[in-house]
Amino acid sequence: MKLRVAMIGGGLDAFIGSVHRIAQNMDGQIELVAGALSINPEVAVASGKQLFLDESRVYTDYKVMLEKEAAMPADKRPDFITIVTPNFVHFEPAMMALDKGFNVVIEKPITFTLEQAKQLKEKVDATGLTLLLCHTYNGYPMVKQAKQLLKSGALGKIRKVYVEYPQGWLSTYLEGTGQAQASWRTDPKKSGKAGSMGDIGTHAFNLAEYVTGLEVTELCANVNIVVEGRMLDDDGAAFFKFSNGATGVMMATQIAAGEENNVKIRVYGEKGGLEWKHEDSNTLLVKWLDKPTEIYRTGAGYNSSFAAHNTRVPAGHPEGFLEAFANLYRNFALTVRAKKNGEQPKEEWLDFPGVNEGIRGMAFVENMVESGQSDVKWTKFVI
Amino acid sequence: MKLRVAMIGGGLDAFIGSVHRIAQNMDGQIELVAGALSINPEVAVASGKQLFLDESRVYTDYKVMLEKEAAMPADKRPDFITIVTPNFVHFEPAMMALDKGFNVVIEKPITFTLEQAKQLKEKVDATGLTLLLCHTYNGYPMVKQAKQLLKSGALGKIRKVYVEYPQGWLSTYLEGTGQAQASWRTDPKKSGKAGSMGDIGTHAFNLAEYVTGLEVTELCANVNIVVEGRMLDDDGAAFFKFSNGATGVMMATQIAAGEENNVKIRVYGEKGGLEWKHEDSNTLLVKWLDKPTEIYRTGAGYNSSFAAHNTRVPAGHPEGFLEAFANLYRNFALTVRAKKNGEQPKEEWLDFPGVNEGIRGMAFVENMVESGQSDVKWTKFVI
Amino acid sequence: MKLRVAMIGGGLDAFIGSVHRIAQNMDGQIELVAGALSINPEVAVASGKQLFLDESRVYTDYKVMLEKEAAMPADKRPDFITIVTPNFVHFEPAMMALDKGFNVVIEKPITFTLEQAKQLKEKVDATGLTLLLCHTYNGYPMVKQAKQLLKSGALGKIRKVYVEYPQGWLSTYLEGTGQAQASWRTDPKKSGKAGSMGDIGTHAFNLAEYVTGLEVTELCANVNIVVEGRMLDDDGAAFFKFSNGATGVMMATQIAAGEENNVKIRVYGEKGGLEWKHEDSNTLLVKWLDKPTEIYRTGAGYNSSFAAHNTRVPAGHPEGFLEAFANLYRNFALTVRAKKNGEQPKEEWLDFPGVNEGIRGMAFVENMVESGQSDVKWTKFVI
Amino acid sequence: MKLRVAMIGGGLDAFIGSVHRIAQNMDGQIELVAGALSINPEVAVASGKQLFLDESRVYTDYKVMLEKEAAMPADKRPDFITIVTPNFVHFEPAMMALDKGFNVVIEKPITFTLEQAKQLKEKVDATGLTLLLCHTYNGYPMVKQAKQLLKSGALGKIRKVYVEYPQGWLSTYLEGTGQAQASWRTDPKKSGKAGSMGDIGTHAFNLAEYVTGLEVTELCANVNIVVEGRMLDDDGAAFFKFSNGATGVMMATQIAAGEENNVKIRVYGEKGGLEWKHEDSNTLLVKWLDKPTEIYRTGAGYNSSFAAHNTRVPAGHPEGFLEAFANLYRNFALTVRAKKNGEQPKEEWLDFPGVNEGIRGMAFVENMVESGQSDVKWTKFVI
Repeated sequence: MKLRVAMIGGGLDAFIGSVHRIAQNMDGQIELVAGALSINPEVAVASGKQLFLDESRVYTDYKVMLEKEAAMPADKRPDFITIVTPNFVHFEPAMMALDKGFNVVIEKPITFTLEQAKQLKEKVDATGLTLLLCHTYNGYPMVKQAKQLLKSGALGKIRKVYVEYPQGWLSTYLEGTGQAQASWRTDPKKSGKAGSMGDIGTHAFNLAEYVTGLEVTELCANVNIVVEGRMLDDDGAAFFKFSNGATGVMMATQIAAGEENNVKIRVYGEKGGLEWKHEDSNTLLVKWLDKPTEIYRTGAGYNSSFAAHNTRVPAGHPEGFLEAFANLYRNFALTVRAKKNGEQPKEEWLDFPGVNEGIRGMAFVENMVESGQSDVKWTKFVI
Repeated sequence: MKLRVAMIGGGLDAFIGSVHRIAQNMDGQIELVAGALSINPEVAVASGKQLFLDESRVYTDYKVMLEKEAAMPADKRPDFITIVTPNFVHFEPAMMALDKGFNVVIEKPITFTLEQAKQLKEKVDATGLTLLLCHTYNGYPMVKQAKQLLKSGALGKIRKVYVEYPQGWLSTYLEGTGQAQASWRTDPKKSGKAGSMGDIGTHAFNLAEYVTGLEVTELCANVNIVVEGRMLDDDGAAFFKFSNGATGVMMATQIAAGEENNVKIRVYGEKGGLEWKHEDSNTLLVKWLDKPTEIYRTGAGYNSSFAAHNTRVPAGHPEGFLEAFANLYRNFALTVRAKKNGEQPKEEWLDFPGVNEGIRGMAFVENMVESGQSDVKWTKFVI
Repeated sequence: MKLRVAMIGGGLDAFIGSVHRIAQNMDGQIELVAGALSINPEVAVASGKQLFLDESRVYTDYKVMLEKEAAMPADKRPDFITIVTPNFVHFEPAMMALDKGFNVVIEKPITFTLEQAKQLKEKVDATGLTLLLCHTYNGYPMVKQAKQLLKSGALGKIRKVYVEYPQGWLSTYLEGTGQAQASWRTDPKKSGKAGSMGDIGTHAFNLAEYVTGLEVTELCANVNIVVEGRMLDDDGAAFFKFSNGATGVMMATQIAAGEENNVKIRVYGEKGGLEWKHEDSNTLLVKWLDKPTEIYRTGAGYNSSFAAHNTRVPAGHPEGFLEAFANLYRNFALTVRAKKNGEQPKEEWLDFPGVNEGIRGMAFVENMVESGQSDVKWTKFVI
Repeated sequence: MKLRVAMIGGGLDAFIGSVHRIAQNMDGQIELVAGALSINPEVAVASGKQLFLDESRVYTDYKVMLEKEAAMPADKRPDFITIVTPNFVHFEPAMMALDKGFNVVIEKPITFTLEQAKQLKEKVDATGLTLLLCHTYNGYPMVKQAKQLLKSGALGKIRKVYVEYPQGWLSTYLEGTGQAQASWRTDPKKSGKAGSMGDIGTHAFNLAEYVTGLEVTELCANVNIVVEGRMLDDDGAAFFKFSNGATGVMMATQIAAGEENNVKIRVYGEKGGLEWKHEDSNTLLVKWLDKPTEIYRTGAGYNSSFAAHNTRVPAGHPEGFLEAFANLYRNFALTVRAKKNGEQPKEEWLDFPGVNEGIRGMAFVENMVESGQSDVKWTKFVI
């Protein structure tokens, strides 16, 4: 049987809800069975109808849903809950879901505060349940290939990391128009201590740590509010020091007018470097000191088992954002199912972001904000 | 309720079956309910199990399946049949499915011979049912944008068309190793009169006619068998004359060692030109005589309703092959559902390839083969 | 001492004259000493003045110039003559220059007719003098690298060649405005039997033969006049058969609105392929059946001696059209000087196009025109 | 008559000397007449011979050369001196040359210390002579186009600047092998206070200030020695604050293994952004909030007079590093000649870097070093 999911948030008026559903559907392994898709009853009902949900399993209050769904018989009960509400409504439903015995999928940033993230980890550890944090870029096969290449030592000791996330969609005072996405993301009460640093900075930070296998130990941040009237940062940059002595530069901005979503990472070791960018997500450039740059491609036979496992079609058939997202879900689902069946998940399946990445992401947010306000150049990356 | 599909072919050992299922699943509008997935009972059963099919609806003989499924009650009966068998097993199941009142999705080329394609059209017309032919490249939003731009007249009268489909996977005598995909595709008894021209040439041809809205009226072909021992063409090219007087060049090959699947089309009008390539499928270049080339991008606000309708995520989130494939299915499903409900499908929904494109594709195959063997330069494109 | 050159044509109102002078100047090995730069006395004098020529060596009649300059003392006499007049004024000055003992540089196409080209070859052979034909694309280091890679056999036997030259500058009836470049190029009395096929088709043809080291033996052409009122072809394509059995497709057009000058060649062998395009002239893509595509770059240490010899700056400093042009001149000058000194020119120096390439180019023009008018598909490539 | 130049440094064993000579030669406006090309007499003589210099004007001591050449008659006397020695031999010859009445071309960084740069400015101002500082990237037509676009206000007020200069050639301890270029550049006695920041950081800094027309007012630097044993920095990054309130990030490194010389700048204003990179130097991307990105190209008719003036061939014929370098020389030469003739140089001619850019570059070096060693985050950009 398919794994069953119930969703909190993600009604028809939300962007990310639809992304999650596509990612759940893609491989035919997951079935949406219930939802508290909106606190607006009209939206909730309309959404349930359009998603072919049983009327009795359409809710407006997630607490009610978790109570009722937890009481369902085993062959109907959700295996996991997906939470796609704004940041300030992550922690409580996640805690409650875990308490009810549900595995959890959650949008990043994982919680509203670092402290909550730590509590969530305790709960995850205590329950033994599985949590997926949706750092999508981790799900790209060529990102996984990059990680494996670096891990293999082929490029030598890592020395330098450049990671960037330029966006342009908040170049104007969009929240002033009432646009939903912009409004909550720029509102400290809903988004948290940071705006852009939580929304996209965490992705860049996670990508850097994921690909290199290193941890940031110190940072020096420049965090800015560029658009007049905005309440949270919409631009930032940081220098990083990594656990192995390497240094790095991170840039993330939402006011780069004309940019879409071109996340990019470059890592240089003693013998060579690599480059991946979202705009050309099926390509990984591998550069060498003394021979031609190589173009690694999704689906090619020379890729690692990690890249291959996260690829659906032969080389030359572009896979994109939704496939990367679905990779997160697939690996999570394979792991949940294996644990359910008392089997050991494969290493490739376990390669998805979870609560530890959530804690580091929240620590990134808080450290960036603090460093951004500090006159001291380098500050420890504190958790 | 979701639309229900039964599949013929596409067991776990097949490549394209999985692509179809992902495309069916993606938008949560279609449910796989039955399958004659393989004539090998073991594969059929294993496939059915892995796809969570009801055991009673797993078949090894498509005729039996069509008989039994046609007799199902209305709330279980499939709405359509997807046929993903090799070319020589397209026509009969399609005819039978239509006879039984099922709508049909079919892989290209539509049939084994042009004559069959014509018969199939008669059947489709007679039954009033809907048929989708899977020319995937039609499903890309930026291909649709290209078509709409040309249709708008912004680039002036079309003068020149270049379309190409370079592949490298048949650079060696792969059929000699028993590789399944290569074996049937290079076997005249299973593939038809042509190899590469049917397999990928039809895609290039269809793309040219779809984007320009023109029809090929004359052609001059060069069709080759390059790899020793091969029984069908693995390489070809053609000059085209189009219905409006424009000319074109088509190149399709499966022996371009090192190439993946980089379908590309360029069209030039009096005032400008455009270029789309599969490798960068979210981009459409629009070139002008006297101003900078413009980069149109999937998801951007300036695109036509046809592009927008076939886009799932905001600009900067790459969509790929599976989304394009799913667009075919979604438009087909929207149309089938509308007709079921007695509603008029929107123009954007009806924009998918069907039996007419199938006939033109089969005519392309036969005209290419004939012209390739002829000493006369130009021959009429005969249907 | 520098080599001395006198120019025929190329006054200040001409485009290509300035290109030749830059190419002559670049390496400080060649000095312009005389010129019949224009038949218009005012232009001739003004051009001479701006180029710092001695007034006494500024001519309006090339015959007078060749007479007088031939009579100069050895330390003033030109070593060679550069001819940059329209096509119909190539043959006679070239013949006369050779008769007077001058080496010759000549723009392509080499002559007005194939017959003239043959006569010119006889003269070159008889005099033992050196002739450079300006097929600039041969001069790019990465084109030379492509040739050497194919020659080495690394890609296996050549099977398929695609070469293209899309331009857009003749998309309108430009000759109707009196524009000088367009006017003579579209005038059969000045340009010859062909327009676009002589102007850019010869470049594409030459590039294909140069890179592959093969000769075209048969062809099938489609040659068109697209713009109304034009007197010569502005568009064409051809299928080729090569001496080793490989086939190819050539496309050259001047009505691809919005295109600049993006010459491109792709060659596929049994084991891999390569791709070079003018727009990214410092890059050569080398593709393989079973490993990542490699990006060869101008200036890198792994290149052949032929590429290295034609490179002036380290990798990463783009070299362009003028450097490629200067490479032709430099190799020609090194060869002329070596012969003058009784030394054997190096193999790398001798790698420039000459009268044999000129004959093949003129044969291409005449064969294209003839095949374009023929109803027979394949015609022998006749010289 | 051509302008006459004498060179200090740049013998046959040097890299940059040859670049300067090509740039001088290219447009036929400058003639090399004398040189103290090397302090090694053998190299000096061999270089003079190969460059066709009059033996009497080949020197080993630049002081002797400046004395003797200053005494030459007006029709032989050099118009300017080019200095291409290592950094520690810039100031004295430049001062002496100015004192002798020569105009000066000098490699960057302009001097060994900021203090020297200031003295040099006083001398330039006092003499009224012209000085060219070779920040080559300024010479690219598309960089000039970028500057003009920003100046026009089309992109709105500038908000964010990203500039980067990744190189890989110092990834190993190359100076340990005795390689000449690496040896002096990593030697504090020859290079100055900084290594990479002087060598390439100054280029990135200059490019940012040139394109935006803004000045850096504060900075926060991270400067590193990555390769063991190295005596000067080989890697660095900085945050910038600009005079209009915009912020920026600069990255320059010489240990990015596998990178060539891909200088890149991105600037974002309120309405759009632009992007230029050295690897594709004939292209300028112009991005907009609400319409397709535009691809500006060298040689196109829509470019500004500044871009057009610095272009030699029509669109589609790539121009590169040597042309950019020659643009500096051409503008310098046009200016020197105009001043000589008592004419006012055109605005386009005066658009080359000089002593003011030299002072800012040296200030950049010293501020980077100081900030790199400071615990305080932001420091004023002090001159």
